[in-house]
Amino acid sequence: MQQPDKNKYPNRTKPVKKYMQGEPLAPWRESLHEIIFEAETPAGKWFDIVLIIAIAASILVVMLDSVAAISLNYKTLLFTAEWVFTILFSVEYLLRLLCVRRPLRYASSFFGIVDLISILPSFLALFFTGAQTLLVVRGLRVLRIFRIFKLGEYLGEAHALIRAMRNSRAKIAVFLYTVCVFVVIFGAAMYLIEGPEHGFTSIPQSMYWAVVTLTTVGYGDISPHTPLGQMLASMVMILGYAIIAVPTGIYSAELAREYRRDVTRFACRHCGEEGHDEDAKFCKYCGGSVP
Amino acid sequence: MQQPDKNKYPNRTKPVKKYMQGEPLAPWRESLHEIIFEAETPAGKWFDIVLIIAIAASILVVMLDSVAAISLNYKTLLFTAEWVFTILFSVEYLLRLLCVRRPLRYASSFFGIVDLISILPSFLALFFTGAQTLLVVRGLRVLRIFRIFKLGEYLGEAHALIRAMRNSRAKIAVFLYTVCVFVVIFGAAMYLIEGPEHGFTSIPQSMYWAVVTLTTVGYGDISPHTPLGQMLASMVMILGYAIIAVPTGIYSAELAREYRRDVTRFACRHCGEEGHDEDAKFCKYCGGSVP
Amino acid sequence: MQQPDKNKYPNRTKPVKKYMQGEPLAPWRESLHEIIFEAETPAGKWFDIVLIIAIAASILVVMLDSVAAISLNYKTLLFTAEWVFTILFSVEYLLRLLCVRRPLRYASSFFGIVDLISILPSFLALFFTGAQTLLVVRGLRVLRIFRIFKLGEYLGEAHALIRAMRNSRAKIAVFLYTVCVFVVIFGAAMYLIEGPEHGFTSIPQSMYWAVVTLTTVGYGDISPHTPLGQMLASMVMILGYAIIAVPTGIYSAELAREYRRDVTRFACRHCGEEGHDEDAKFCKYCGGSVP
Amino acid sequence: MQQPDKNKYPNRTKPVKKYMQGEPLAPWRESLHEIIFEAETPAGKWFDIVLIIAIAASILVVMLDSVAAISLNYKTLLFTAEWVFTILFSVEYLLRLLCVRRPLRYASSFFGIVDLISILPSFLALFFTGAQTLLVVRGLRVLRIFRIFKLGEYLGEAHALIRAMRNSRAKIAVFLYTVCVFVVIFGAAMYLIEGPEHGFTSIPQSMYWAVVTLTTVGYGDISPHTPLGQMLASMVMILGYAIIAVPTGIYSAELAREYRRDVTRFACRHCGEEGHDEDAKFCKYCGGSVP
Repeated sequence: MQQPDKNKYPNRTKPVKKYMQGEPLAPWRESLHEIIFEAETPAGKWFDIVLIIAIAASILVVMLDSVAAISLNYKTLLFTAEWVFTILFSVEYLLRLLCVRRPLRYASSFFGIVDLISILPSFLALFFTGAQTLLVVRGLRVLRIFRIFKLGEYLGEAHALIRAMRNSRAKIAVFLYTVCVFVVIFGAAMYLIEGPEHGFTSIPQSMYWAVVTLTTVGYGDISPHTPLGQMLASMVMILGYAIIAVPTGIYSAELAREYRRDVTRFACRHCGEEGHDEDAKFCKYCGGSVP
Repeated sequence: MQQPDKNKYPNRTKPVKKYMQGEPLAPWRESLHEIIFEAETPAGKWFDIVLIIAIAASILVVMLDSVAAISLNYKTLLFTAEWVFTILFSVEYLLRLLCVRRPLRYASSFFGIVDLISILPSFLALFFTGAQTLLVVRGLRVLRIFRIFKLGEYLGEAHALIRAMRNSRAKIAVFLYTVCVFVVIFGAAMYLIEGPEHGFTSIPQSMYWAVVTLTTVGYGDISPHTPLGQMLASMVMILGYAIIAVPTGIYSAELAREYRRDVTRFACRHCGEEGHDEDAKFCKYCGGSVP
Repeated sequence: MQQPDKNKYPNRTKPVKKYMQGEPLAPWRESLHEIIFEAETPAGKWFDIVLIIAIAASILVVMLDSVAAISLNYKTLLFTAEWVFTILFSVEYLLRLLCVRRPLRYASSFFGIVDLISILPSFLALFFTGAQTLLVVRGLRVLRIFRIFKLGEYLGEAHALIRAMRNSRAKIAVFLYTVCVFVVIFGAAMYLIEGPEHGFTSIPQSMYWAVVTLTTVGYGDISPHTPLGQMLASMVMILGYAIIAVPTGIYSAELAREYRRDVTRFACRHCGEEGHDEDAKFCKYCGGSVP
Repeated sequence: MQQPDKNKYPNRTKPVKKYMQGEPLAPWRESLHEIIFEAETPAGKWFDIVLIIAIAASILVVMLDSVAAISLNYKTLLFTAEWVFTILFSVEYLLRLLCVRRPLRYASSFFGIVDLISILPSFLALFFTGAQTLLVVRGLRVLRIFRIFKLGEYLGEAHALIRAMRNSRAKIAVFLYTVCVFVVIFGAAMYLIEGPEHGFTSIPQSMYWAVVTLTTVGYGDISPHTPLGQMLASMVMILGYAIIAVPTGIYSAELAREYRRDVTRFACRHCGEEGHDEDAKFCKYCGGSVP
């Protein structure tokens, strides 16, 4: 069991992002990139820590602003804090665009859009109301919290979870689609059986009831009262209760498959691919001997 | 344990349907079959796309028709749309019967019945009311949506899910039967304990409460108020909470078995070993090319 | 892979019940036993079918009797039916005791007690009310329905499920006990936080709320209204939502283990034990070569 | 990969606790330790049994004290019982500190803190009210119940469960954090869509609704009424319904891994192969006796 060859594949665990492809920028911009995007230098670590705290604080401000009692008493304070954060994040966004080799690529990436959505609302709020609460989209930025501590352990864990999710997406899609069909059928049936006088005012409303029941949430705002309706509802409930097994089985099987592959985290020294079984003697991708 | 011979098994992934067995029809009918039932030609693909859109639109019409506000204002439009769809689907049904070698076989197959059920209600609605909403059974037709994109990936996934479901049906049946017995026992017990003055008006009604509670849906329309009733209810809840594990375990184990089988489709012709991944190009045991 | 040796182990799949141990009875009683307890002769099959129908009908009678509207209009009919069934089942019970070698053993076995409990209430009802509904305990007799069809497939499936449940009972017990401790702790905490004015009238009542919430049933008859209470409730909900994974994981793992063992249903020809792994060459119980 | 040597590892299953490290105490204190902390002698077993009964009884007293009807009628009795228990447990706590080699270590261990928290409230209650209910923290002491019966079987089971939980904590943390982000996003979105007039009075309140819905508890105290709100709520419900699969898959996979490890405790001394079941007497690969 040899070690993965670090000289041949130095960036194996960190593939180059699309927005960093191309010619290097001026040195000061590369250093800025180190601070803002990476967390390997002390400056980079501190930048991320301050950023996370600012994000969490800005989300808290928005939450408190929605509580009538608090927003009445502290309106000025909340308003000031909100604009401080907006300006902070706008500056950070501009800096990010500045220290990236392909600014447009970053702006259209997932995090780029998240960053933009998290500063726009404050500006829009100068013209519209209600947009202020979209600031909580900053919450998505807090997903980057794991980068601070370089918790390779946590990142690796997240990768396994995400890989298993990606591999099972086809089956999950089939499952979700079947759930939708059930919702339509049962919603319409209950609408016929119970009718508007029992709360099932239309087929869309009955479909909403079907979702509430199939997912076993069961608010109780709409519930069947006729014997036939209760019988059909019982079938829906038992169905929802039983088919929870499907996505769980799918995901468990995929994750178990990832666990079996996890044992050999090394890469084939001939072709660089990972993902070999425990008992593999030859790489299944290139045929070279393994490990 | 030989490798799959593509010459020997040209239709490996598409078994011949029962209604297509027998002597070929006139050429124009065979071409019609290609368009309507298959999606390998551009015409076939387009037919399916138009069909899906029509199905989705017809379901939407039925849904909107049930919302009192909308049906009052747009009655003529909805009525016209509904009949346009009904005529469209009737023509499509007749064409299907026409281009199939055994029309009776198709008419009695699952999709044949679905097709019929989805056009009958409009005709029945000329005589009865309420039948119009059965048009949503067209929803089952939308299950064919995956045929359009020839998403072999999705179809294969669905097959694995359905195979696992078929293999576990015996165990699931035993489980469902046991749930029914619990519902009867606990329903009767709560009826005795709580009685009609607390909402448990009869044993069937109490059985409905038992289903609502065992499946953890918990509407709250009926709930226990006496201490003994609440204690028994707690037992029912914990039981329902714990036995979700049974169908999940059954289905997960079956699916995991399918996953293991997925890899032994053929043996390596060099060393004879089975157990290769779907994406393997080389045998992991001997390094020879595979399949 | 040899076949299990049927000569050496003729009764392998049907162990002798405790109440049938000992000296044979008179021939007519042995024949009666064949009819009543076994379902291998046509008479035995018919007996079981008639019995199941009688049981299901008697349960239906009890259910209908509880619905006020029906019991008022059909009192005489229901009363007569109930006594017909009671006499029928009493005669059956006496016949069972008569054709069994150790009557006391049968009377104290699970099904013996079930049989007795299902005829006593009618007699008790001559003196007390409310006992009539215990007749639904006959429901447990319907578990014998699978014996009729000699669905070895279904019986085998049930055995695998029950074996997996038996093997995981220790872990499940630890889990259930931990749930109880959580219920006590969180119930008491919510009682302190919310107090009687919000519905949490006592610690037992709050423990009932904790069970309702932890099992994700969520009636809504009691729910937190203070911010701190809602925060604690959120923790309880997420905890309940997450620890569903525990019994599921336990049972799935056990069932998967059963599946792996299932492949080799044969018994070792040296010692007769089952339960060997797929790759076993020697019996792990006696060391003899296997299969 | 040798067989476990019982002479070499006499304390294999019982590691020395931190608070028992160091020089032995006076003989009477070591004997006291045997009685209080261990359950291998009859005295030790009896001590634990009496202790568990006392703990259960004290929790019952606190529960009954909270029910208004009971506390009014039995105030003196409950008060006396409570103080009897408090004094009993205080004496036990002092005895524990006395017979342990490092008293400070025990006082700061988990159980040490639990013991302290379970006697403090009564004393605090002399000055404050409400503290009395913290006595239920004694509930945590009841976790030691398994030590009485020396149910090695149960302890081993608990260890496997806890090990699997420890190994999956990283992934579970990632999952829980993602759930929090969803709760923030959906809570804020529903606050925007539904607004205070429908019960969504602030973002924190809406986040509470999001938790109630995502975990499929569904009290129904707050529920959406606008069509758009119901549509978003449906997405939240289906999401919560589907992602239950994630922690279940994680934990199942870890537990399955523990099960696989369970069988490779040692290698057969004849052929060197690992992977024997716990109940194996002979090696399944070579037939030699095992362990």
